[in-house]
Amino acid sequence: MSERQARAKAWFEELRDRICAEFEAIEGGVRFARKAWKRPSDDGSDAGGGVMSLMRGDVFEKVGVNVSTVYGRLPQEFAKSIPGAAEDSRFWASGISLVAHMKNPHAPAAHMNTRHIVTSKTWFGGGADLTPTVPIAEDTATFHTALEAACDEFDLSYYPRFKKWCDEYFYLPHRGEARGVGGIFYDNLDSGDWERDFAFTKAVGLAFLGVYPQIIRRRMGQAWTDADRTLQLERRGRYVEFNLLYDRGTQFGLKTGGNPEAILMSLPPEARWP
Amino acid sequence: MSERQARAKAWFEELRDRICAEFEAIEGGVRFARKAWKRPSDDGSDAGGGVMSLMRGDVFEKVGVNVSTVYGRLPQEFAKSIPGAAEDSRFWASGISLVAHMKNPHAPAAHMNTRHIVTSKTWFGGGADLTPTVPIAEDTATFHTALEAACDEFDLSYYPRFKKWCDEYFYLPHRGEARGVGGIFYDNLDSGDWERDFAFTKAVGLAFLGVYPQIIRRRMGQAWTDADRTLQLERRGRYVEFNLLYDRGTQFGLKTGGNPEAILMSLPPEARWP
Repeated sequence: MSERQARAKAWFEELRDRICAEFEAIEGGVRFARKAWKRPSDDGSDAGGGVMSLMRGDVFEKVGVNVSTVYGRLPQEFAKSIPGAAEDSRFWASGISLVAHMKNPHAPAAHMNTRHIVTSKTWFGGGADLTPTVPIAEDTATFHTALEAACDEFDLSYYPRFKKWCDEYFYLPHRGEARGVGGIFYDNLDSGDWERDFAFTKAVGLAFLGVYPQIIRRRMGQAWTDADRTLQLERRGRYVEFNLLYDRGTQFGLKTGGNPEAILMSLPPEARWP
Repeated sequence: MSERQARAKAWFEELRDRICAEFEAIEGGVRFARKAWKRPSDDGSDAGGGVMSLMRGDVFEKVGVNVSTVYGRLPQEFAKSIPGAAEDSRFWASGISLVAHMKNPHAPAAHMNTRHIVTSKTWFGGGADLTPTVPIAEDTATFHTALEAACDEFDLSYYPRFKKWCDEYFYLPHRGEARGVGGIFYDNLDSGDWERDFAFTKAVGLAFLGVYPQIIRRRMGQAWTDADRTLQLERRGRYVEFNLLYDRGTQFGLKTGGNPEAILMSLPPEARWP
């Protein structure tokens, strides 16, 4: 592992620690449970692994924060479609992935993921997006404004490009519906300045850490009805549909022997199909 | 539509009527609601359609019975993988598809589907399988015995082959788990004797109609606990995973503009991921 890779890995773990501490402070009493896993390899060699952090509480009905650092060789079929891996299938990938499903139907679910990938090329990817039961304009604005500010520090083209990418990615064609109210999504980010791309990826994580707890605090105490809850559970059904039918990470992970417990931590604690 | 196609279509609709009547008799008071849909076509020509029948009651928490008869041309990419469609992409397909999710965790969920497909070739396919919360040996035996008897009337090789096919098909590799306790699954059935293959397909439907209500009546009155219900909802999560990640009909239907409401009628009314 190069010094840069070590720094990226350390950052994802630091961000995990800071997010978990903040969420535990909101929850007030319940703590994240951590569970480490090792990635199996064909020949028994070290292939990396990760740590799942899962909390179930009164505010966070279910929130998972995974960090993982995995390496080895990509399956031949997959290597072709990964930048820089066609000739040499060796890869290294480290990242953080978070999905929060809230108990209060007025508090939006959220997803955040940032990662650093190294093949013969090197890049960053990630993003953050919000999935409310029913969109609330104030929350949508707060969330997007925070991400836009993080983007604008680096490149004025980032926010419009990455917002559009997010809208296109988190879309259910069979329903003709967006999964939520968006955010940003980026991949294959290699500007030629590694330090700058790393700093941007850190800024995305920090923007999420700054804004999501703010939105949760705004909504967690609001009264809700059984009808609100039913609608929330139906919207979560759409979340399941997206993740199992379309999400590339989920499909790839499950079909290539990834850890199903970590990959499917994104699924809601409870969902309904009317 | 040939006389044979008309007879197949009429049978699937008759079977739907008989199953719905039997389920309504068990439910005692609630009725199926029917909703017709038309399959859209690129040029506005008639492309067929179907009728969904949905009932929510105290015994059947959610049960959908769909019949559909659709025709036209297969998308080019798909035509290659369909028997008899590589040269001429015209197809005609008619069938019945049923999924029942029961309220009582001791009463197993069930799936039954039979269909007749016509391209330049002609064949039948289908099957029936049982998904209990926790397998109950008596119910598994009752179900398999009924299907075996239906198979054995036609060909002693059918039951062992179609049982194995079912076990292989309804399997979640990422979990290393079967979806349920199996049943039978068959496809591309063309023995050279259309009348015999049609009679077998009718026998599968009748075997299901004979045996599933019997199992439901055996379990619907049994007492159950919150722990039983929680386990049922978690097993339903696996059902969702199978249908969205692996089921060929679901994936193909959703990705080629099928009716999402009819296709996703198979999803449970409520599910949990622990």
